[in-house]
Amino acid sequence: MEYRILDVKSVGDFLLGIDKIRDYFKDDELVSSEIGDGNLNFVYVVKSKKDPKKALIVKQAVPYLRCAGEEYALSKERMTFEIRALQKYALTAPKYVPKIYFADEEMSVVVMEYLGEHIIMRKGLMQGIYYDDFSEHISDFLANSLFYTSSLYLQSEQKRLLMDRFNQNRELCRLTEDFVFTFAYMNHESNLIDEDCKKEADELFERGDFRKNLLELKYIFMTKSDALLHADLHTGSIMINENETYIIDPEFAFFGPFGFDIGALVANLFNSYISHAILENDNEYREWILETVLQIYEKFESKFLKLWDDTDSSALITKGFIADDALKEYKKEFLTSIFKESVGFAGAKMARRVFGIAGVEEIRGIKDKARKKRASLKALEIGISLIKEYKNIKTPKELTKFIRSRV
Amino acid sequence: MEYRILDVKSVGDFLLGIDKIRDYFKDDELVSSEIGDGNLNFVYVVKSKKDPKKALIVKQAVPYLRCAGEEYALSKERMTFEIRALQKYALTAPKYVPKIYFADEEMSVVVMEYLGEHIIMRKGLMQGIYYDDFSEHISDFLANSLFYTSSLYLQSEQKRLLMDRFNQNRELCRLTEDFVFTFAYMNHESNLIDEDCKKEADELFERGDFRKNLLELKYIFMTKSDALLHADLHTGSIMINENETYIIDPEFAFFGPFGFDIGALVANLFNSYISHAILENDNEYREWILETVLQIYEKFESKFLKLWDDTDSSALITKGFIADDALKEYKKEFLTSIFKESVGFAGAKMARRVFGIAGVEEIRGIKDKARKKRASLKALEIGISLIKEYKNIKTPKELTKFIRSRV
Repeated sequence: MEYRILDVKSVGDFLLGIDKIRDYFKDDELVSSEIGDGNLNFVYVVKSKKDPKKALIVKQAVPYLRCAGEEYALSKERMTFEIRALQKYALTAPKYVPKIYFADEEMSVVVMEYLGEHIIMRKGLMQGIYYDDFSEHISDFLANSLFYTSSLYLQSEQKRLLMDRFNQNRELCRLTEDFVFTFAYMNHESNLIDEDCKKEADELFERGDFRKNLLELKYIFMTKSDALLHADLHTGSIMINENETYIIDPEFAFFGPFGFDIGALVANLFNSYISHAILENDNEYREWILETVLQIYEKFESKFLKLWDDTDSSALITKGFIADDALKEYKKEFLTSIFKESVGFAGAKMARRVFGIAGVEEIRGIKDKARKKRASLKALEIGISLIKEYKNIKTPKELTKFIRSRV
Repeated sequence: MEYRILDVKSVGDFLLGIDKIRDYFKDDELVSSEIGDGNLNFVYVVKSKKDPKKALIVKQAVPYLRCAGEEYALSKERMTFEIRALQKYALTAPKYVPKIYFADEEMSVVVMEYLGEHIIMRKGLMQGIYYDDFSEHISDFLANSLFYTSSLYLQSEQKRLLMDRFNQNRELCRLTEDFVFTFAYMNHESNLIDEDCKKEADELFERGDFRKNLLELKYIFMTKSDALLHADLHTGSIMINENETYIIDPEFAFFGPFGFDIGALVANLFNSYISHAILENDNEYREWILETVLQIYEKFESKFLKLWDDTDSSALITKGFIADDALKEYKKEFLTSIFKESVGFAGAKMARRVFGIAGVEEIRGIKDKARKKRASLKALEIGISLIKEYKNIKTPKELTKFIRSRV
């Protein structure tokens, strides 16, 4: 399907040109509106006029950064990788991604289920909503999406074939390398440094000894292809309500280190924790956030191990190669290494949110200037500490204790 | 150029159909012969009848394993990766690869300089020939070929584009995973176990605690894309004389861990050392082999570091990100990590040569049965020890001492 840019006027007719979608809407009159508050793409919701519950989302990439305008070129092929990741998740973790109705790589477009009864998790956390099933859902998503695309499950050639579908997500990998691991820690035009915080921030940044670890983490990000990552799994990439959790926006998807998705998520939960603490909100709610982090790690590890134990042979392990007790020990060490890397990545993801190009609403949006400053510096301090200590924090319990003792 | 299989009769006419090569041979009458003693491909030398110094090598892959016959299918696309690696080496380390006159991926054929004044290094080592410039040459080749294809030199997108040219060398990566890291250590039909050694070998294999480390190394091989590797850099892949060193046969080329090429080379030098020791040959020669290993490491490290120091910015390091002293420390740790991995890979490469599918002539070819047994078990024992100790051996000097004390 030849590329053309859709708009709010043309998107309805575009949908009616697709058999499967015409069947869905039947002869209903359609109403389209633009809803995207994302930085990169155009997003429309198209609803049946007489039955607004019948609705679909249309997401299209344009060959530039939507939030910055046409002069900021960014190839629309990023949508190719989002489509491929959604299609893969539909196989590895179908309960946790929206249903896809149509996708076309050339048109850089995907049409999917409208999640009208869910909100962006970041906003839910800001409102203090408890999501008691979230750790169960997200640990399931992480364990399944990571394990089933790794060398612990796939055979060697299968894995390289699958990697081939994501290896050229070059631009977005570079964005992460630049913005998560580099520019946010130095003088760079893309930063948004709050003048109020500059002095204290400079002092934190001058603790130069964390930079060596940050290079290590960046190098792992660039060269270690454990599994298919979402690679942008913050709380803004999750649609949620009390019963359901959906992962969206995997346009950064590529084969990277296991710990990166987990670390991104944990970083955003810690930012929420800091925000609630500084705003002196309900103590119990922020304790729930830390408990959720603990649960995510513990459930992820046991689910991931269960999947591994249930797998007889893979690219890595041939039946009969290693005795059960040695293998058990190997798996334990393997999971510890995922944990440690996730702590380092969580640190990088937290620290970069403070003055880097992309902030988080729960901190940047704090209205009281003094509190905003305290929250910003706390997030920066903790992020830097996690980067420094990532090889020394051994268990999820130590990690949550580390956070509790510092906020 | 459409694929057709060449033979000793058709290869001359094939060459004369290529303008550049017709210019090279002018109107000379050509004489062709088959020379390949390799396992995988057909290799011809085509010479001018009146001036046999005017000669070229033609190497073509067929869609099966040459040594095993047509029923052992192996896709001829392996030659694609050999061609691409040779072309890349022609840019990164031109002094150390034969000159390419013609290459065609569809024909799975490459035409290159004939190295008539060089021999396979393995044979030279068996004859006790000193190659005093070898450590200089090979350290140059390793430092340049690895550094210039890594994230320490390339920019992020450049590296992913280059990787894309090698990522689908799936079959040969799997061969290494199977034969170097797996089958040689278990009961497998592909092994050639010398009944004489079986009891002692089984005892060595039952020291199960090395297997966990071997899995670690296999996992690093499968998932860590540091740089473009030759990936089969044993002494049979090197053509040499006292003055020159040429690397050939990079059909296994892919993006893998820095330490693998170095480890493969060192393993084969250690095998030669063991062979000379067990055959009670000249003490001085085998000391030269260990000294050469030491020199290779030391020269590689200083050349690699020099290239790195001369590089201002890369995918990994942005100017201004980190202070000089911290960066220096980071580089030192980085090189130590390459060294350690190379020791582990050397162990795997040594051990797998003993009973695995592909032996080495200097050990398997020992005529005296008792000595052959001693050499085999010594290579296996040392291989397994290196796998066990790879994280504890800290310097090249410790490594050569480790070998000297055990043979």
